[in-house]
Amino acid sequence: MAKILSGKEVASSLEAKLKEDIAALKSRGVTPGLAIIRATDSRPMLSYENNAALRASRLGIDVFKYSFPENACKDELIKAVEEINADRNIHGCIMLRPLPGELRTHEKEISNRLTPEKDIDCMTDISFGGVFTGKSTGFPPCTPQAVIELLDHYAIAIEGKRAAVIGRSLIVGRPAALMLLNRNATVTLCHKKTKDLSSITKESDIIVSAAGCPGLLTKENVSPGQVVIDVSTTWDEKKPNGSGGFGTFTGDAVFEEVESVVDAITPVPGGIGMITIYVLFKHLIEAADNLTK
Amino acid sequence: MAKILSGKEVASSLEAKLKEDIAALKSRGVTPGLAIIRATDSRPMLSYENNAALRASRLGIDVFKYSFPENACKDELIKAVEEINADRNIHGCIMLRPLPGELRTHEKEISNRLTPEKDIDCMTDISFGGVFTGKSTGFPPCTPQAVIELLDHYAIAIEGKRAAVIGRSLIVGRPAALMLLNRNATVTLCHKKTKDLSSITKESDIIVSAAGCPGLLTKENVSPGQVVIDVSTTWDEKKPNGSGGFGTFTGDAVFEEVESVVDAITPVPGGIGMITIYVLFKHLIEAADNLTK
Repeated sequence: MAKILSGKEVASSLEAKLKEDIAALKSRGVTPGLAIIRATDSRPMLSYENNAALRASRLGIDVFKYSFPENACKDELIKAVEEINADRNIHGCIMLRPLPGELRTHEKEISNRLTPEKDIDCMTDISFGGVFTGKSTGFPPCTPQAVIELLDHYAIAIEGKRAAVIGRSLIVGRPAALMLLNRNATVTLCHKKTKDLSSITKESDIIVSAAGCPGLLTKENVSPGQVVIDVSTTWDEKKPNGSGGFGTFTGDAVFEEVESVVDAITPVPGGIGMITIYVLFKHLIEAADNLTK
Repeated sequence: MAKILSGKEVASSLEAKLKEDIAALKSRGVTPGLAIIRATDSRPMLSYENNAALRASRLGIDVFKYSFPENACKDELIKAVEEINADRNIHGCIMLRPLPGELRTHEKEISNRLTPEKDIDCMTDISFGGVFTGKSTGFPPCTPQAVIELLDHYAIAIEGKRAAVIGRSLIVGRPAALMLLNRNATVTLCHKKTKDLSSITKESDIIVSAAGCPGLLTKENVSPGQVVIDVSTTWDEKKPNGSGGFGTFTGDAVFEEVESVVDAITPVPGGIGMITIYVLFKHLIEAADNLTK
């Protein structure tokens, strides 16, 4: 029976600290301001925006919505970014990505216009460079940062450990590998072209799986003593949702199998996905603090 | 007996291609221009500059030297970078690093002023971001690119192979790991805090050693069938220099030991170090081509 690493517990701990930090900011007259750029009406994006805005408001964060139709032109979005850069009431910005249609081809150009000081979700190449170099330029992406927060919360040592990261996306796998490296782990980055995955995962102390492939991680891939962080959230219509119905998220691990072997594991749902929004707010508070010192 | 992967052979091949490409540029009225910023009189830096300038001139590249005393202020260097950005006769820029004394604290700020289009030696965070994302923004650093050029020259497959990179410097180890990843290798990045290095290196198909620790790689660390790229160049006063005297560079591998086990290995000197300057020129020619299309 593995220890269950609860995203909810980490989120609560982050939230408590956020409340203190926001109170401290307000006591010196600063209300943290979050800009959300959205150029799509897709349901998941709208739902993410509403959820983020609601939680932000509850914490006393001002939310500034920049909403555009899907056929908006890139100059409109760039103008919004420039406004956000100049607005002293806004300390951090997220843009819901990927952008739709034609806008997508300009996503990088638009993203890179954001000032790194307000880049709380690693939109810009400069922030990416900071993850790469291990220096604090901008902020790292929220999901891999949530992995680090969870490991730290549960006092799981990173230094000197072997870590296998599965999946090399720009948003999760690559930055997770570098962030673990920056904390002195020895990291192997695995992906679709990796041969004999299990020989690598079995030798690792920490497995971070971000492949988005349900069923990828079975008992054949793991060893006793390991910590498994399952970052993936693939929608599964047939999985019981815990409220008597069906349809919820599932990770890469065959949970029951892996859980019976390893020392500790994150559930899906209820793991990393619970933490990322609080990491975003944490970055926002840091940005607000830095910008108003 | 391992195959010796000759840096000289790769350099000759790159040089031949460069001559063709420079002739093609000149035929449409473009002479490639290289700017070299130097703010130190240290002998190795002066020697590097003279060597680079000499080779460039022989290839028909115009060289523009921006030389400063060690006590120059950062604004003088920034002004030089801005001039280089604006100068249509200059297509690429290198700055001899690390900068000395007080200037060093401003190195990043100065570097980041260079336009990515002319950043042929990966000075800027934006170019670093490009290595990280696997997209072509600016150019990758020359030394890890030389590793890739050597592997390609000898038709050594990278895709699907396991690679161990030893050393996580910003200039060599980290970008080498990401560049091998971008070519679909499964890469483990090892460093000082790595435990049981030999268990990782022995399982790899390709070992790239950039630790700067002579004697690090012995026969205990390698297996038959492997390719060893020894990137390190540590000065060794006692090593025979091949001209009857003593004093030359040495790599991380105990050459005779490793060579007796593996399939192929680069010598030091005569390996990667021979190639980097031609990679720099290759980037310059690409930049000149891009900027004058």
